Amino acid sequence: MPLCASLPHVLRRGLLALGLAFLSCTHAMTLDHIEPRSWWVGMTQPGLQLMLHGEGIGRLQARVSHPGVTLRGQQRLESPNYLVLDLEIAPDARPGDVPLELMDGTRRVLLHPYPLQARAPGSAQRQGFGPQDAIYLIVPDRFAQGRPAPAPAGMKEGERRHLPGGRHGGNLAGMRQHLDYIAGMGFTQIWPTPLTENDSPEYSYHGYASTDLYRIDPRFGSNEDFRAFVGEARAKGLGVIQDIVLNHIGAGHWWMRDLPTRDWLNQWPTYTETSHARLSVQDPYAADSDRRAFTDGWFTPNMPDLNQRQPVLATYLIQNSLWWIEYAGLSGIRTDTYSYSDKAFLARWSARLLEEYPRLTMVGEEWSPHPAVVAYWQRGKRNHDGYVSHMPSMMDFPLHEALLAALTEADGHATGFTRLYEALAHDFVYPDPARLVVFEGNHDTPRVIAALHEDLALYQMATAYLAMTRRIPQFFYGSEVLLSSPRERDDGAVRGDFPGGWAGDPVNAFTGEGLSPRQRAAQDWLRRLLNWRRHQAAIHEGRLVHYSPKDGAYVLFRQLGAQTLMLVLHKGERAGRLAIDRYPEMLRAGQRWHEVMSGRRGTLGQHLDLPARSAQIFELED
Amino acid sequence: MPLCASLPHVLRRGLLALGLAFLSCTHAMTLDHIEPRSWWVGMTQPGLQLMLHGEGIGRLQARVSHPGVTLRGQQRLESPNYLVLDLEIAPDARPGDVPLELMDGTRRVLLHPYPLQARAPGSAQRQGFGPQDAIYLIVPDRFAQGRPAPAPAGMKEGERRHLPGGRHGGNLAGMRQHLDYIAGMGFTQIWPTPLTENDSPEYSYHGYASTDLYRIDPRFGSNEDFRAFVGEARAKGLGVIQDIVLNHIGAGHWWMRDLPTRDWLNQWPTYTETSHARLSVQDPYAADSDRRAFTDGWFTPNMPDLNQRQPVLATYLIQNSLWWIEYAGLSGIRTDTYSYSDKAFLARWSARLLEEYPRLTMVGEEWSPHPAVVAYWQRGKRNHDGYVSHMPSMMDFPLHEALLAALTEADGHATGFTRLYEALAHDFVYPDPARLVVFEGNHDTPRVIAALHEDLALYQMATAYLAMTRRIPQFFYGSEVLLSSPRERDDGAVRGDFPGGWAGDPVNAFTGEGLSPRQRAAQDWLRRLLNWRRHQAAIHEGRLVHYSPKDGAYVLFRQLGAQTLMLVLHKGERAGRLAIDRYPEMLRAGQRWHEVMSGRRGTLGQHLDLPARSAQIFELED
Repeated sequence: MPLCASLPHVLRRGLLALGLAFLSCTHAMTLDHIEPRSWWVGMTQPGLQLMLHGEGIGRLQARVSHPGVTLRGQQRLESPNYLVLDLEIAPDARPGDVPLELMDGTRRVLLHPYPLQARAPGSAQRQGFGPQDAIYLIVPDRFAQGRPAPAPAGMKEGERRHLPGGRHGGNLAGMRQHLDYIAGMGFTQIWPTPLTENDSPEYSYHGYASTDLYRIDPRFGSNEDFRAFVGEARAKGLGVIQDIVLNHIGAGHWWMRDLPTRDWLNQWPTYTETSHARLSVQDPYAADSDRRAFTDGWFTPNMPDLNQRQPVLATYLIQNSLWWIEYAGLSGIRTDTYSYSDKAFLARWSARLLEEYPRLTMVGEEWSPHPAVVAYWQRGKRNHDGYVSHMPSMMDFPLHEALLAALTEADGHATGFTRLYEALAHDFVYPDPARLVVFEGNHDTPRVIAALHEDLALYQMATAYLAMTRRIPQFFYGSEVLLSSPRERDDGAVRGDFPGGWAGDPVNAFTGEGLSPRQRAAQDWLRRLLNWRRHQAAIHEGRLVHYSPKDGAYVLFRQLGAQTLMLVLHKGERAGRLAIDRYPEMLRAGQRWHEVMSGRRGTLGQHLDLPARSAQIFELED
Repeated sequence: MPLCASLPHVLRRGLLALGLAFLSCTHAMTLDHIEPRSWWVGMTQPGLQLMLHGEGIGRLQARVSHPGVTLRGQQRLESPNYLVLDLEIAPDARPGDVPLELMDGTRRVLLHPYPLQARAPGSAQRQGFGPQDAIYLIVPDRFAQGRPAPAPAGMKEGERRHLPGGRHGGNLAGMRQHLDYIAGMGFTQIWPTPLTENDSPEYSYHGYASTDLYRIDPRFGSNEDFRAFVGEARAKGLGVIQDIVLNHIGAGHWWMRDLPTRDWLNQWPTYTETSHARLSVQDPYAADSDRRAFTDGWFTPNMPDLNQRQPVLATYLIQNSLWWIEYAGLSGIRTDTYSYSDKAFLARWSARLLEEYPRLTMVGEEWSPHPAVVAYWQRGKRNHDGYVSHMPSMMDFPLHEALLAALTEADGHATGFTRLYEALAHDFVYPDPARLVVFEGNHDTPRVIAALHEDLALYQMATAYLAMTRRIPQFFYGSEVLLSSPRERDDGAVRGDFPGGWAGDPVNAFTGEGLSPRQRAAQDWLRRLLNWRRHQAAIHEGRLVHYSPKDGAYVLFRQLGAQTLMLVLHKGERAGRLAIDRYPEMLRAGQRWHEVMSGRRGTLGQHLDLPARSAQIFELED
């Protein structure tokens, strides 16, 4: 039953907030979507592109009458059911509902009060995440189920906790309940894998196949729940990084039932999967067709590939990112499958976000073992082809892979610790290595403890390195209690349920109840390490000096002013000694030291003792 | 018995040519060395630094009286037995013997006629090696023994062919006898490992521990033999690349008995070996002491490490390189252990050589799997630290390693052909990738056929790739007849004797006598391949286009004008088909093709047949 534009205003807003379609009276004009759902006064760029979707809406004319809001133009798309409005919001526009009228000739067929809001104080200058932070990556469906669990929301897939690829029922309420645990561990940022609606019949839990880019999946909670979660996290000293996908959507996205334009997607005569040949972007020898097979091929048949060269879509995607940042109060963005999108668009997207939020951090995923490839995408890189990117950060896959190899390979001219040393030495190819995000593992890699052969000593070395190196470290939920997986890719196992996240779980890693001594040791180690790291300016902004590995030991220093920190990783199966005269710039006999993880103290002689298979962190007196 | 300065001139020159010390009459002043041994009129830089060595020579005063030759200064070194003269040779100086007088107060104690020669026509503008070339690397002691073998020359180590690390007796006469074989194989450049004197008691054959930088080891022949060898090679279309070592000398070098200065060598309190941590040169985090451990540490106890920061030594080394180029008529230089030397010196050395010979090619050895590290040293690279190198070429270890891995690993996201594809795609980091030298193997690597599991099909793929890619290809002597070795480093085995190089050899690879059918097939394959390559402008200067590997096939094109060449490597164990619509920029149905290696001809349909485990090279009609 159609609702009338003449309904009391408060009722109309209430219905909108419930996410219902808004309908006009005359001729029963249905507005199925209007996106962005709201906007703000005082953004750097005054332009706002509104996408309206409703049957036959393309034939209508829009009118806007609100102080400071001007309708600059309207575009029709190939589908008759879209209308695109280009508004201009003056800096002094009045916040409030903007009456948006749609006219069929001289008749008004729809009146929509479009929410125009005031920005939160300091919004533009919010501080993104950086080297002072430690990030906790969570797969929300697998972390914790808050009580009471929300009622089923009419989505295609329900809770099926017994299936590795099913929904296990974790949600925002669960994450919110455990913010104290996360903060207590020493983390300062949370990166949840995508939370927007993924209404697919199966395998919907991972979130990378969005079916509504403006809606939190109701199985996780509402948009408001997400905003409240971010707000409460912030109050506890935890920033939230939203995971977004510019490259593709889910096959169930509502666009797929009524494509705005034929070129909205990268279309192929038959299903064509991406080649994954990411080097084709940089490769001077790549054929155009091969480059296109990489960027325009689909990720899976269930993930239609967006054509970001389509100008309306490009603006849509940019505004969508801005919307979530402003709406939810994010501290950053993590961009999935970064290089798979059109690179000119990526430059524009990243520039636009920084224009609006100059100190925001965005981190892109470029799953390559090659520093030169990752560096191509970071802000400040002078590229061979003149390409200018604006990404403050990228995921550091090269250093991640080198770290795991370093700890599991025997040392040699090109193996073991040499690999780690050489990978870090490659920082000369990056414009801003300190802002890269390095990690022990993520939702796509084997669990770190599996990669490290279930070896607690290697876990300690890996985490100590992550804490000390010149990067932003990221940890995957559950690594702290040694959640494991097969060493070959197995998503279901890697994204296992966090113990204690569900009522009735026999083990509770939040409280420690039921953890094995080994798990408890690992958790205590990381908690101590990260809480210590929070206050180490030498790690956050100090210089790094390291020495080529020798005799199974790798030594790295951080230094700022009078503060000198020393990391010593020792892989030897027997205790050894480090001759301090190999480090003349950093050490001298007689210096007092304090080993952070054990609390031991002493004075430097000519040698430093190295316990077998140990990670030690020394604070050195000046 | 001392010879007098008043001896007839012709006799004096004759003695000099024999390499004997030249002696004055009065006070029996002995001039043990004067280096460079000669010089030329018309070099770009007029300066010439002469090092004179003889007992007590440092206290003498030099006088020169020759039109166009001016003595600008003389330096004494810490040892009293050296005198360094700084001469200036005017462009119009008269070639001929320059009378060099050494005075003890007012008494002349030595008169030395110093040879000043006219340059060969076109010397300065000689063309170095480049992408049109194919290089044959020879270990002269292990290639062929020319007859009559030279008489033993009073050197510390004699011929001991039964020892893997002994001298086997190959020589310049042997190489000279087989120039037709080398040219007939399609090679256009010869790179012999170092030929200068290595008078060590053992392990002297390899040549990298020189004991006289101005003398060909007499067991190989004389300086004149070398010059004649280069001349005859040139007449057959073969350039010669001299292998030089700037980083170190042999422990038996005559300097070691009477060091010119204490800082002539990189000295350490106790023997200190290089760390081999080559990344320390680029590493923004390297400590000075660690960088010094790499460049100033010794290669072995028998290879004293030269301190190229010593200004007299630096000039000495530069002049030594210029001398051999000019004296012997070289087409290029290969520089051993390139990055182990002082990098400021390397920049000066490379700039000076190119100032004198703008079209010369020098190729440096930087044994790193990392393109960014190799690229650092190539001319034109804009480096993070402002370092400016002038090396036209570097050895391409990254592509070499990727090629072997590509052929022996199963294909995966980061393995097999993907590795080769990604390595070549990394050409964006090089300022001039076409001038890099890529190789199947060298004297320090396992034999290629061993690395390729003794598989002839893989040998064909490797060599076809080397012939077609955008590089200067280099082959190791004996690879063409499948000389093998262990897969772990074993220098003696890798540097095996070339069959037929010695009288009585049961197999003769020069004539083909006694070769197995497999060896003959490999040799025929390479001969056909390289002789074809000599005339392919599309390979020498055409563009390269390649496509990401798929289904066990890797496809690469070269194109220049109307000439299109296509390389198809197929690792599949079964015959397959290549759909040509994956290569729309390069192929179209109906094109006539000619497969170079088999001679087959045909017309393109929608597919191209791929025999199992094959390398095919197609010439495509326009």
